[in-house]
Amino acid sequence: MTYEAFLSRAAAGMRQSPIRQMGILAAQRTDIISFAPGYPGPDSFAWDAYRAIADRVLAARHRDVLQYGPTRGYAPLLEALQAVSAARSIDVGTDQMMVTTGSQQGLDLVARTLLDPGDVALVELPSYTGAIWAFRNHQATLVGVRQAADGIDLVDLDRALYQARLEGRRVKFLYVVPNFQNPTGMLLGLGKRRALVEWAARERVLIVEDDPYGALFFDDAAHERDTRPIKADDDEGWVIYLSSLSKTLAPAFRTAWVAAPAPLVARMEVAKQAMDLCTGNFDQRLLFEAIRDGVLERSAPDLREYYRAKRTVMEQALRGELGDTLTWSPPRGGFFLWASLPPPVQSVDLLPVAIAQGVIFVAGHAFFVDGGGGAFLRLAFSLPTHDQIREGVRRLAAAVKEAVGQPASRQPSREPVPEG
Amino acid sequence: MTYEAFLSRAAAGMRQSPIRQMGILAAQRTDIISFAPGYPGPDSFAWDAYRAIADRVLAARHRDVLQYGPTRGYAPLLEALQAVSAARSIDVGTDQMMVTTGSQQGLDLVARTLLDPGDVALVELPSYTGAIWAFRNHQATLVGVRQAADGIDLVDLDRALYQARLEGRRVKFLYVVPNFQNPTGMLLGLGKRRALVEWAARERVLIVEDDPYGALFFDDAAHERDTRPIKADDDEGWVIYLSSLSKTLAPAFRTAWVAAPAPLVARMEVAKQAMDLCTGNFDQRLLFEAIRDGVLERSAPDLREYYRAKRTVMEQALRGELGDTLTWSPPRGGFFLWASLPPPVQSVDLLPVAIAQGVIFVAGHAFFVDGGGGAFLRLAFSLPTHDQIREGVRRLAAAVKEAVGQPASRQPSREPVPEG
Repeated sequence: MTYEAFLSRAAAGMRQSPIRQMGILAAQRTDIISFAPGYPGPDSFAWDAYRAIADRVLAARHRDVLQYGPTRGYAPLLEALQAVSAARSIDVGTDQMMVTTGSQQGLDLVARTLLDPGDVALVELPSYTGAIWAFRNHQATLVGVRQAADGIDLVDLDRALYQARLEGRRVKFLYVVPNFQNPTGMLLGLGKRRALVEWAARERVLIVEDDPYGALFFDDAAHERDTRPIKADDDEGWVIYLSSLSKTLAPAFRTAWVAAPAPLVARMEVAKQAMDLCTGNFDQRLLFEAIRDGVLERSAPDLREYYRAKRTVMEQALRGELGDTLTWSPPRGGFFLWASLPPPVQSVDLLPVAIAQGVIFVAGHAFFVDGGGGAFLRLAFSLPTHDQIREGVRRLAAAVKEAVGQPASRQPSREPVPEG
Repeated sequence: MTYEAFLSRAAAGMRQSPIRQMGILAAQRTDIISFAPGYPGPDSFAWDAYRAIADRVLAARHRDVLQYGPTRGYAPLLEALQAVSAARSIDVGTDQMMVTTGSQQGLDLVARTLLDPGDVALVELPSYTGAIWAFRNHQATLVGVRQAADGIDLVDLDRALYQARLEGRRVKFLYVVPNFQNPTGMLLGLGKRRALVEWAARERVLIVEDDPYGALFFDDAAHERDTRPIKADDDEGWVIYLSSLSKTLAPAFRTAWVAAPAPLVARMEVAKQAMDLCTGNFDQRLLFEAIRDGVLERSAPDLREYYRAKRTVMEQALRGELGDTLTWSPPRGGFFLWASLPPPVQSVDLLPVAIAQGVIFVAGHAFFVDGGGGAFLRLAFSLPTHDQIREGVRRLAAAVKEAVGQPASRQPSREPVPEG
């Protein structure tokens, strides 16, 4: 029996996430070194703190701890996240906030509440695939905007906007990851951030600002002031800000938050009620207690150093093994190094060779909504150990040398990439 | 600034859940006794087991425990849930299963993958509001089917189906809660269950079977064999089965599962990737270990007795205080007692009087997609203690006597109820 006739149009167009596919592959083969998913390093987690908190909270048997919770989130956690936001110069009341089941749910909520089929969402070239597919699954039309070395190209932004409007389309929002962008690791310039708020008000287009990595700047290449969120200067209410505890505390707790104009958060709350009722209440309680006990604040400098060191190991290894072949900009924070292959090698052609060598990454085309990006590979240095990074780069170098020596097995595609 | 122009059509039509609204009210007023949300009793939770497991799991620092997990779910938990399903005579491989972030996400996934705007979902009159709004939020058209004392009326089912088809609509599925239905507490007859599978194959309409309460039968009024899922006799693949650990272990862990034809589960997995990536991995690990340690199996008889006793206390109190005024069928399992007021009293008019008396419930109209049900109230006996149930019924009786003595403040509405 087939079920095609039962599927919604949305479902018929849905595609597997290439990052998740790589994650499955990595889980199946323990001999493989993974530069693919942007997973935090498990030795960065505050295991003992969660153990003590879980023990305390479960021993106390407070009736709410294992119960359903409010859709908005556990109130003390919302207040703690309000203070975290305030430390990033984002001044919002809890009426402008909601806890989400990971920032992925935040992206889905944005799509659900704002996008009708055919509406345009502007995204960076390249952009985070999880956002691309959250928007596409609502049958939105995604239009790419080029990036310069300091982030989104404002001239190309206007071009994309006017072109879409000329075609009679409604442009609902621009999606940006200003801090250590996924996948490029790029940092959006401060001047451009302010320009984007003005642009939003002038053009009456919302901005969806996704900021999972802002706290993870590397002090040899960036300062905290470089990461000031766009939302910090949003006096009129054009910016929907998403952030997460997945990269700084742990992803298993699926706890993130949105800060946005109150009427939009109210809509998102109603949407979330029918999506999962509430984010895990025990998880929220653990994270609230961890933040209250100072875990988030105390661990931040260590986390920055932890990922900076991994970045350095990867860059040194790449310079040693592939310095003549790959090009990249040094990551100034976050989880990713975005490298470019010499023409005509395509990263999708390199991938099977790399898998045979025992290393994986995400091929660049997954991040481009215009079918481009074939030369790029996203290398996440966040999860592997220093030794694994060195060994993974050795394997990658062997694969690259093999692929560079071969004729390209297929031409670069200019079609939108069906599998994300 | 207003945001109406930015909202999707779906968002513009979304409405607050009346159950969640009551939950918020109950949380704000500690003096109120709540018969509103279907929350499990927190003294039924295996606090010590979770405490021991959390301690063990966090001490072991297995790298996967606090990490992102596979979208399908934690593999050992999937296997444990396969065994739980098999004990209910549902024989499925793990390729036909997925963990969901609560059954509410299962309902949302069903809606996303199957419903285009205007498609018809058939639902019982009355039906679970969380399902109604999951389907409505995808702009589906909901068509109600009457129920008899042994569940859905098969003649009315055909009438509703043919009527919708005459109007040129696609009928994608029938949604049913066969075991101790939310809100009526009704048990669907075994003959009707088999008839529904035949109906689905004959009419080529899927069945979405939602079974959170099946394990909670009361041994003075029902047997395990009365709860045999429709899915158990689904040889051809017409049934999507949803169940949950929220009512039997604890809701805070947001862990439920779907068992459905493999091609549909594969679609749901892709949809879930863009919704929340994965269900909480720590939660899944805790529940897997709890099931493996025998917590679910050992606690089942105690849970049945725990809720049966609360049911008995509520019925005794209602007979004593309101036996001449309210009518109801004795609940044979689950969390709910579904009571009917004498005409012309409407439960929406009773509600403010009850709140003034310090007791809340959910007014019946929220569960009816045809605007009916004004005479009913859903009384959840699952959360309050025995004393709270007795006191709550006394308060309810005072409110009912006040409301019955008053003229109705408004006429029963026959319009679809906008707020669910």
